[in-house]
Amino acid sequence: MAKEITSREADYSQWYNDLVLKAGLADYSPVRGCMVIKPYGFGIWEKMQAALDKRFKETGHVNAYFPLFIPKSFLSKEASHIEGFAKECAVVTHYRLINDPNGKGVIVDPEAKLEEELIVRPTSETIIWNQYKNWIQSYRDLPLLINQWANVVRWEMRTRLFLRTAEFLWQEGHTAHATAQEAIEETEKMLDVYAQFAEEYLALPVIRGKKTANERFAGAVDTYCIEAMMQDGQALQAGTSHFLGQNFAKAFDVQFLSKEGKQEHVWATSWGVSTRLVGALIMAHSDDDGLVLPPKLAPLHVAIVPIHKGEEDLNKLRERLIPLVNELKARGIVAKLDDDDTKRPGFKFAEYELRGVPVRLAMGMRDYEAGTVEVARRDTKTKGTVPFEGIADHISALLDEIQQNMYNKALAFRDSHIRKTDTWDEFLKLIEEPGFISAHWDGSSETEDKIKELTKATIRCIPINNPQEDGKCVFSGAPSKERVIFARAY
Amino acid sequence: MAKEITSREADYSQWYNDLVLKAGLADYSPVRGCMVIKPYGFGIWEKMQAALDKRFKETGHVNAYFPLFIPKSFLSKEASHIEGFAKECAVVTHYRLINDPNGKGVIVDPEAKLEEELIVRPTSETIIWNQYKNWIQSYRDLPLLINQWANVVRWEMRTRLFLRTAEFLWQEGHTAHATAQEAIEETEKMLDVYAQFAEEYLALPVIRGKKTANERFAGAVDTYCIEAMMQDGQALQAGTSHFLGQNFAKAFDVQFLSKEGKQEHVWATSWGVSTRLVGALIMAHSDDDGLVLPPKLAPLHVAIVPIHKGEEDLNKLRERLIPLVNELKARGIVAKLDDDDTKRPGFKFAEYELRGVPVRLAMGMRDYEAGTVEVARRDTKTKGTVPFEGIADHISALLDEIQQNMYNKALAFRDSHIRKTDTWDEFLKLIEEPGFISAHWDGSSETEDKIKELTKATIRCIPINNPQEDGKCVFSGAPSKERVIFARAY
Repeated sequence: MAKEITSREADYSQWYNDLVLKAGLADYSPVRGCMVIKPYGFGIWEKMQAALDKRFKETGHVNAYFPLFIPKSFLSKEASHIEGFAKECAVVTHYRLINDPNGKGVIVDPEAKLEEELIVRPTSETIIWNQYKNWIQSYRDLPLLINQWANVVRWEMRTRLFLRTAEFLWQEGHTAHATAQEAIEETEKMLDVYAQFAEEYLALPVIRGKKTANERFAGAVDTYCIEAMMQDGQALQAGTSHFLGQNFAKAFDVQFLSKEGKQEHVWATSWGVSTRLVGALIMAHSDDDGLVLPPKLAPLHVAIVPIHKGEEDLNKLRERLIPLVNELKARGIVAKLDDDDTKRPGFKFAEYELRGVPVRLAMGMRDYEAGTVEVARRDTKTKGTVPFEGIADHISALLDEIQQNMYNKALAFRDSHIRKTDTWDEFLKLIEEPGFISAHWDGSSETEDKIKELTKATIRCIPINNPQEDGKCVFSGAPSKERVIFARAY
Repeated sequence: MAKEITSREADYSQWYNDLVLKAGLADYSPVRGCMVIKPYGFGIWEKMQAALDKRFKETGHVNAYFPLFIPKSFLSKEASHIEGFAKECAVVTHYRLINDPNGKGVIVDPEAKLEEELIVRPTSETIIWNQYKNWIQSYRDLPLLINQWANVVRWEMRTRLFLRTAEFLWQEGHTAHATAQEAIEETEKMLDVYAQFAEEYLALPVIRGKKTANERFAGAVDTYCIEAMMQDGQALQAGTSHFLGQNFAKAFDVQFLSKEGKQEHVWATSWGVSTRLVGALIMAHSDDDGLVLPPKLAPLHVAIVPIHKGEEDLNKLRERLIPLVNELKARGIVAKLDDDDTKRPGFKFAEYELRGVPVRLAMGMRDYEAGTVEVARRDTKTKGTVPFEGIADHISALLDEIQQNMYNKALAFRDSHIRKTDTWDEFLKLIEEPGFISAHWDGSSETEDKIKELTKATIRCIPINNPQEDGKCVFSGAPSKERVIFARAY
């Protein structure tokens, strides 16, 4: 290995950090809790953005941009919203620096104090609904289907690269509707967009569900989510879609004239996914040798390493391999011929492995003469020699196979790590093992809190289309009509 | 007209604001100096982003993301940098809100004061060069060619939608090089990328030049710029590219081991364009009836209005026009069939005119029978009837022609509004008329300041490849070797 990575078994958490740093995805910054997303990590995020943005537009949404700053009084207008975010707000209080009259350097100018403090947006419902008030008058102005790509700040106390950072990048959809029904349909539609995206692009199976009251977004009537299982069996919330009812419309007095000529408050949704998905991608698929990236999100699909002695051989190999790079490019496959003479093939192999490049080719002079090429796939770590003729077709099919295989593997892992239990003793045993628990719950926040306190497990979701069955709460023994998913979570 | 717009002659400034608001490009926000970019305006910015991002990548750059916040001490490390930005910094001092113990609502928690204040980035040189220190050790790590798409905040006192806002969106390239020569070449290359983009996409001719010492970016050795002329004859700086020398490398002690085995400080550039370009686009081309958008940046290329009585006619028209929309889409041309029955054709025409849609088609039953269609172009406001057969080819060629015509018109306007003068009396007269002045200058900041004080005109740039000629400074009479461009500016 080019760079040492802690094994998952030795320390899963350290393995994750090692990978993020050594594969060049991100770096720590001097600002507490804020990360630097390096070009390779940002390349993955750009691919996520492009795929999501396309789906948002296909489903009728348009992008816009709202201010970074939210007046303090706005946040307070929706009671549970401020309750949820007050503890983690970055606050701008001044707008100027001056030279320190008592020394060197600069200080904040006490004369330049804002009349009302500004909050760096932790999410944008309040600033957006304040604006929607001016944009919505009649049912003709509805639905309003807007998305924003933006940075947000939540002053988290315990941070982790990609998974939980004080500043992160995300998209936030904010839609306005004439009826509750239409808003609920939108909430569910966007949850589906997220679920399909996670499954098709991240190769990550997810459980679609609803949050319990305890875990709802601050200001939502209902929070829908997709929950994924990481390799250590813990849950990761990969996206949320909220039905906000009329809460924000009432807080900002956004009314419209209905077809029937009545003034009514508007119905709302909001939904978002963030750079946290890059963390999910890593934790779901990667191994002790490095990243394993699904082809649909890999910035580089194919690394091609020539093996040669001297310039003459290299030129022969180049002559054969450069046209391949171009042929692949024409198919939308990004390939790189790595003919850097200062590094040995073995070093390059390890480097591409670390960076999770889905397919690696190697060609030496024996291959050259025989008309073959060595093909190695990152997901299974298998390799073989195949004819060079038709190699572009082979690679194209192989990338599809890798994408599918990664999904199947993650699905099999997840499904074999969801265990049903009906007794508290077994629950206590199972929760110490990797995986999710499917168990009955009496529906009370009190029980939920108690279970969390005792086991650190939370209810990840109440699955959508959940089978209805008679049962008893695993903790309280009270009657229950359906099972919910418990897990420890990121 | 659907919505009244002040004429340019009556009040150019009000005309601009009317257009921005009424065409739905942007809106004021409750946060001082911050704007909301509405979907139509953001659609234009997205097209700009896509075109620029493609060119950045073609020239070897990659995207990354650095923190929004900059520790106060970082800004101070480069002396002229802090000097330039200190007066307009938004400062984060606290990280939590609490319930007001003396009343209702929330207040900033005095206990949650940051040890060191954080500045919301006005630009990212300092936070980025602090990071580059860890990323650059040897000449093998160079060049480092990174771009960032981000929001930045400069607490401007006088703001204007798009042109000057407290928060704006931009891209900032930050590159690191082994030699001064290579960094200068990069600076010039990116200026060329901007100039070509302005000319090809915005249809906006620009003068490539260097800024005088007075107008340089805070921390740069040399600032290159592109300057455009608006319809009122004022100048607008449309993009800048800075050669930063070793200033930031020294401030953050970024050194590399050269091929020759010596420790040397790295050479730097930075370059950026912003949402201000949307303002430039409007001011350069639009007229008293609304926006005039160049096809390459128009979110909608073709608006198609059926003219009919009753559903039967409409269905016939739909049958002919929907396939056209699809045919145009296949060519990358965005067309919309506007069959909304609640609005009259005349209202729709005015609306599309206001929004600057380059081409508008109208088809009534007489056209339908005759196999013709009415084609109106926004730039010249001319219209004519053409055969429906081959209409997609016609539109495609017409869009190219409109793009070219808009550029030619702007170029002719600009070139006829640059006047040479060699006397101060004439300068004083010309500066009250729309346009730029080409005049000799003695090279001193003192003269430059005095001219600005007397006339509000600044030196926009010293053009690149400027003809050398003997002359005398238009103000001081001191000897000069070349003319520079003076103008009042946005």
